[in-house]
Amino acid sequence: MLPGVGVFGTGEIANVLVPLLREKGFEVRAIWGRTLKEAKETATTQNVQFHTNVIDDVLLRKDVDLVFIVCQPFLHAEISVKALGIGKHVVCDKPAGLHQQDALKMVRASQYYPTLISLVNHPLRFLPAFTHMRRCLQDELIGSIGDVVLMDVRVQMGTLFPEKYNWMCDAQMGGGALNLVGSVVDLVSFLLQQQAIRVHGVLRSYTKTTPAINGIRQITAPDFCNFQMELTTGTLVTVALHSHTVPAKAFSQEVLIYGSKGHLVVRGGDLFVLKEGQPKEEAVYVDVQDLHFATNNSLLPRPYIKGLCKMVGALKEAFGSKESSWVKAPVSTAATFEDGLYVQAVVEAIRKSNESRQWQRVQLSTDAPLNHDQIIRYARMSTM
Amino acid sequence: MLPGVGVFGTGEIANVLVPLLREKGFEVRAIWGRTLKEAKETATTQNVQFHTNVIDDVLLRKDVDLVFIVCQPFLHAEISVKALGIGKHVVCDKPAGLHQQDALKMVRASQYYPTLISLVNHPLRFLPAFTHMRRCLQDELIGSIGDVVLMDVRVQMGTLFPEKYNWMCDAQMGGGALNLVGSVVDLVSFLLQQQAIRVHGVLRSYTKTTPAINGIRQITAPDFCNFQMELTTGTLVTVALHSHTVPAKAFSQEVLIYGSKGHLVVRGGDLFVLKEGQPKEEAVYVDVQDLHFATNNSLLPRPYIKGLCKMVGALKEAFGSKESSWVKAPVSTAATFEDGLYVQAVVEAIRKSNESRQWQRVQLSTDAPLNHDQIIRYARMSTM
Repeated sequence: MLPGVGVFGTGEIANVLVPLLREKGFEVRAIWGRTLKEAKETATTQNVQFHTNVIDDVLLRKDVDLVFIVCQPFLHAEISVKALGIGKHVVCDKPAGLHQQDALKMVRASQYYPTLISLVNHPLRFLPAFTHMRRCLQDELIGSIGDVVLMDVRVQMGTLFPEKYNWMCDAQMGGGALNLVGSVVDLVSFLLQQQAIRVHGVLRSYTKTTPAINGIRQITAPDFCNFQMELTTGTLVTVALHSHTVPAKAFSQEVLIYGSKGHLVVRGGDLFVLKEGQPKEEAVYVDVQDLHFATNNSLLPRPYIKGLCKMVGALKEAFGSKESSWVKAPVSTAATFEDGLYVQAVVEAIRKSNESRQWQRVQLSTDAPLNHDQIIRYARMSTM
Repeated sequence: MLPGVGVFGTGEIANVLVPLLREKGFEVRAIWGRTLKEAKETATTQNVQFHTNVIDDVLLRKDVDLVFIVCQPFLHAEISVKALGIGKHVVCDKPAGLHQQDALKMVRASQYYPTLISLVNHPLRFLPAFTHMRRCLQDELIGSIGDVVLMDVRVQMGTLFPEKYNWMCDAQMGGGALNLVGSVVDLVSFLLQQQAIRVHGVLRSYTKTTPAINGIRQITAPDFCNFQMELTTGTLVTVALHSHTVPAKAFSQEVLIYGSKGHLVVRGGDLFVLKEGQPKEEAVYVDVQDLHFATNNSLLPRPYIKGLCKMVGALKEAFGSKESSWVKAPVSTAATFEDGLYVQAVVEAIRKSNESRQWQRVQLSTDAPLNHDQIIRYARMSTM
């Protein structure tokens, strides 16, 4: 039997997630929102029987064995650690908390309860084009493009910012392009299975207001990032993320991996290869599968929804048919909390580089002291 | 009457240039090559009556009043300065010499002989899509995309390297992607009429050998560059130049200028605009005009050939019908030797940034001391 699900979060993403969970056979038992009003709204729209604004009221429910955390990032660590502590499986949306200290707490909890599922939601890992791309680099086709020397990622999207002001508009809360940067950093380590040792980045906040967000609160989160990473083997990764003035709801993404003997490229949801001496690219995988439910009104890019859909499918497989037991294989390629910690370390280094105008070494935290800066940040958040 | 032309240079570019000059009505009187053999080969192919390997033999000819310098960059300054000194008009291919000292000598000569034409060949300035783009930014459409905040350039080409080893394969000689970087730097200042104050760049040399170049001499010039510039008003420019593993002879270029109220973009030879609130881009200029002569066998990208063709047309207009006189207007948008000096300063700063892993200030030389390093470089060149 599949575990009952509790969803932490409301609005856009919850409205995509709940139907998707149901489609795969999961029962959604409870919705948590920051305010009772928000929780009620989403529970009503999605026809979920229980809603609350008290975290424990979801976690302590006996009919909830799996929690999806899709709320504000500053709560990700708290809810994840609590949930694992009382024996619930956890899928936490990216980012894994606000900074490395948060992510480190999550890593420790997941290591302490290894029999529970603990994943970060990086849906691009489940997008078929990327799973095929990874296989081309690893398996039977190994050597077909030779040694990987360069990876280039380009993402253009209409807007990163929601209609109503929320954490996505706030730089300190991990919003805007920083969240998108995290997705790309994770995708690189998923595909190449290498980590960054050094990064350089430029961040910009071009959008300060939108027709709906133009009051006292303005947008502080960046909507543009251009960054470069040097990986352990010397491979260079260059990334350009644009999210302004492109028509709203537009989304395009191109991921190129250059080897010494050719290249692989994902455009949209399709994978192509160019081998040495060939006159043009050949299609390796063409994505013809369509999503079952309407996502046209969602601000979430389709590849992310599609990946999320596949991940929920993998979770279903993982839980299989036996009660309170699961197998690792179907979700073995998902991002772990350790992956989440690594992404935080890279994003932090990019932020630093943007300030220092220099390349920065990626430094993984191994300890989590609460510092003054962080205390102030928490105090500030409590007002949001 | 149009002035007689002397061409300094052989091979690929001379074989494109000579027919193009003739098409516009110019008479090509002499070809100069580094060796008599090379000079003879090109003179025979192009049916030019006089050829030589002695610079003065071209410059002193009474029937030559305009020289096109398309040979190795380390000779650009020497030939330009000499030619102006004996009263010949000069069009010098990019780059303007090897470094700022070279370019500075050229600038001084051009200032000393202001009644002579002295241009750097940056053909993209004459490509219709870019002249239209510039007009949209300047003229009647001003304000249509608001204040320019970001420019993004992406060039992908099959290969930068010729079949036989030459200066394009040598980093010290200004070859490879550095030359392409120069074209982009010039295009940015042409379109936005702003200069860079600070740059950051990463250069890589992925191609070391080709099927034809694999002996003692290997390719040292970079074939990849990713760089960022900050302009005087704070506008950010991000550039990605790829020239490896894309199918040979492929060429694509995208130039995006983002404003606060929309964007302009040149894809291939066409110009599009997206204004605030519009659902999609509109075509502003579509390039349907075809080149009159076969260029399919040329390694030079078509936009460059097309721009060169337009520039030669502008030169024809400038010389008009009166003997030994010319008007400035038709070539007023061409790159001057001062522009060439600026491009050198930016390229030098990008090189430094690649080594220092830091942003570098662009520093324009105002004096030209010959230093030890340069003497050694000249000594090395004399063997090429």
